[in-house]
Amino acid sequence: MEIQIGVAKINKYASPESGDTLEVIERPHGGLSVVLADGQRSGKNAKRISTMVVRKVISLLAEGVRDGAAARAASDYLFTHKNGQVQSTLNIISIDLDSRTLVITRNNPEPVVISSHGSVSVLDEESQSVGIYRDTRPVINQFDLEENLFVVIYSDGLSFAGERIGTPIDIAASLSRQIDEALSPQQIADALMAQALELEQDRPGDDISVVVLGVLPYMEDQVRRMWVRLPLK
Amino acid sequence: MEIQIGVAKINKYASPESGDTLEVIERPHGGLSVVLADGQRSGKNAKRISTMVVRKVISLLAEGVRDGAAARAASDYLFTHKNGQVQSTLNIISIDLDSRTLVITRNNPEPVVISSHGSVSVLDEESQSVGIYRDTRPVINQFDLEENLFVVIYSDGLSFAGERIGTPIDIAASLSRQIDEALSPQQIADALMAQALELEQDRPGDDISVVVLGVLPYMEDQVRRMWVRLPLK
Repeated sequence: MEIQIGVAKINKYASPESGDTLEVIERPHGGLSVVLADGQRSGKNAKRISTMVVRKVISLLAEGVRDGAAARAASDYLFTHKNGQVQSTLNIISIDLDSRTLVITRNNPEPVVISSHGSVSVLDEESQSVGIYRDTRPVINQFDLEENLFVVIYSDGLSFAGERIGTPIDIAASLSRQIDEALSPQQIADALMAQALELEQDRPGDDISVVVLGVLPYMEDQVRRMWVRLPLK
Repeated sequence: MEIQIGVAKINKYASPESGDTLEVIERPHGGLSVVLADGQRSGKNAKRISTMVVRKVISLLAEGVRDGAAARAASDYLFTHKNGQVQSTLNIISIDLDSRTLVITRNNPEPVVISSHGSVSVLDEESQSVGIYRDTRPVINQFDLEENLFVVIYSDGLSFAGERIGTPIDIAASLSRQIDEALSPQQIADALMAQALELEQDRPGDDISVVVLGVLPYMEDQVRRMWVRLPLK
């Protein structure tokens, strides 16, 4: 099998900086982690907060700290540095090759949408952002690495898209349709982003980040690949 | 304009772990850095060394340290931790949005190949790997961000490909041809990798990593994208 991750990310309309931070890093024993944080407020301040959270998490993951412990540490760290005045969401998805599992770690009121064996479900157990309480714990879900498993994590800009005009995006329904159409993770991320931008008439009211991870049948070769696109003004 | 980065990476034949480590991170004021290290020897030990170097560099870049200073720090750090007994190559390419330049930082005997305004050249000033001497300095080249600028960095597995059978790969000539054919950075990275694997008869004698960065005309939209593929056994 193989893992593919597709990411699409855009700033709030007319905002020079996104409050969302996303990094992908290699784990110590192979495998990958994707870390996404959405800092409170928008622009420069939000960016500083989400960067602080993501940096803390990736430096701990790189040292072999488990995802749940890294999330708790990031929460305590933000709580201590900002006196509990500032919050950030935090999502981690990891391909852990030691346990051959997919680990989803969530400190985010927004749910995570998954599709397993062709059936879509929403992981929406109550979950608290990091930074405002002592002892904040993440919600953790773990799945065996099996083909045709898809996970979608996103910042709240995606679920808010279309809310102003009373037609919010139905992420689970979209994912189900996109998987039926055999779209790749990158195509799914792009399709969700396109849907959001259409609803927002190309002027998103918040930063939007969408990450789609898919466990797919093995294709062609043993080459790892990564592609990045950064539009400049 | 827009930046695209394409990466292709494979392990030495029959080796479960690559000694090359590559990470892409966001810079504090926007922009991106790609950091590639190739640790001495191969397998687990090499991986540990290259990871140590890349982690040190990205944590410093994230704090706003300039690329040259981060490279010098990584060298001193490795020198101190391993008593000057272990070396690693180090390449950093950064899109620096403060200065609107492309910065190439090199501690690697392997050259960097660039193409600017349709003409390919090789940056091959003498350069020392990090970790074995005090006061090792990187070679730094800086270019204005202009369309149709391409940079190729790679680990020595690429230039060694085909050497055993007396037909080493000519990276500059390949790049020139691939740009004439209007290939994207990912397609160029894939084409160089395919050429190397053909010369090595699909059994690469060393870890191979190829990174191609291109500054291209702006296409379609303001969406940042990232795609990752990780083949599993």
